[in-house]
Amino acid sequence: MSDRKAVVLLSGGLDSATSLAIAVDKGYECYCLSFEYGQRHGIEIQFAASLANSLGAVEHRIARIDIGAFGGSALTDSQIEVPDYVPCENQIPVTYVPARNTVFLACALGWAEVLGARDIFIGVNAVDYSGYPDCRPEFITAFQTLANLATRSGVEGDHFNIQVPLIDLNKKEIIRCGMALGVDYARTVSCYRLDERGYACGRCDSCVIRRQGFQSAGVEDPTQYSV
Amino acid sequence: MSDRKAVVLLSGGLDSATSLAIAVDKGYECYCLSFEYGQRHGIEIQFAASLANSLGAVEHRIARIDIGAFGGSALTDSQIEVPDYVPCENQIPVTYVPARNTVFLACALGWAEVLGARDIFIGVNAVDYSGYPDCRPEFITAFQTLANLATRSGVEGDHFNIQVPLIDLNKKEIIRCGMALGVDYARTVSCYRLDERGYACGRCDSCVIRRQGFQSAGVEDPTQYSV
Repeated sequence: MSDRKAVVLLSGGLDSATSLAIAVDKGYECYCLSFEYGQRHGIEIQFAASLANSLGAVEHRIARIDIGAFGGSALTDSQIEVPDYVPCENQIPVTYVPARNTVFLACALGWAEVLGARDIFIGVNAVDYSGYPDCRPEFITAFQTLANLATRSGVEGDHFNIQVPLIDLNKKEIIRCGMALGVDYARTVSCYRLDERGYACGRCDSCVIRRQGFQSAGVEDPTQYSV
Repeated sequence: MSDRKAVVLLSGGLDSATSLAIAVDKGYECYCLSFEYGQRHGIEIQFAASLANSLGAVEHRIARIDIGAFGGSALTDSQIEVPDYVPCENQIPVTYVPARNTVFLACALGWAEVLGARDIFIGVNAVDYSGYPDCRPEFITAFQTLANLATRSGVEGDHFNIQVPLIDLNKKEIIRCGMALGVDYARTVSCYRLDERGYACGRCDSCVIRRQGFQSAGVEDPTQYSV
């Protein structure tokens, strides 16, 4: 396997953009992977393409996967409304998409094996996050163990490495890190319920956490908010 | 979670058909899941639908996932030929699809969580198999660990169970088990390179292992072989 190639999961959001910038800065040839999974905020794919291009990715692929059809999340089921942000610890919000990061990492693993890439980047972070179980360090560790049992490369002794450069950073630190690496956050989108004009709602989990992050970092958020 | 509902991975092949029959026999309400993943033997989906119906599944879903586009396998890349069977131990054949079972189980996990199903059936077996790394017991154990870290249900203390009823059976035993449970093996397809008439090649890994299994079981194989 090559220690220069990396598959980078890229959603079009703030975290994965920063994760990509870090991977590029470390000298990896980055193969970015985004998904059409039936998400209501499908516009994020366009942001991902723009980010991959502006940050110097070698390639950007968009894979369609039908997990949204299973429902069970406000992000994929139009019957479940995306709520306003309510700060509450130890609760998994309705925007949690069942097994999403497991599916995303599994697909990234397949592509990494074909490319001969050893490293997979995912922009999860365990500090300012939404309480999703598949953003925790123990989940990542378990996936890495699985990756090395699941694959030809793993069996042959070449080990995959799941890189989570944001895992211990809060949003302020992520934004400052991205700014230092030249991320244009105007090319990222966080809102779960953009309006027809493309304005962010300013009230969902994702908007509130983003806004607080920019405020703490002392950086202007280029997002256009409707409130 | 319900201990009566199960998601059953169903490829349309001999093993997954038997796994479904076992799940039905155990009294589970079976929600079958098949994939269009760019496989050259896409006709297996039709066989899967027929099996789900004949064996009494509650529902059968077909999910499209774009992993075939990554290539790297004779089953998904038309540039790589499916070879004749060559008995050789400790070699992973070119029909191995990178991370396929990881992706399939990840999708099954997502649906199981939405359904409130605790059990997921997959028809892997570690005896008469093709040397795929993601058919081994240690892979399954690692996936179960991951499943319970990845999900809301796992975090809340309700644990998923990955059931592998065929793991210790050879093909002869699998076929005898299926026959006892009324599986109509004419509704299954194993060949990786069916011809235009729908005849099996009789020479790929999958055909050779299937044929040997029926011969050992003393049961007539309903497959039409071209040689």
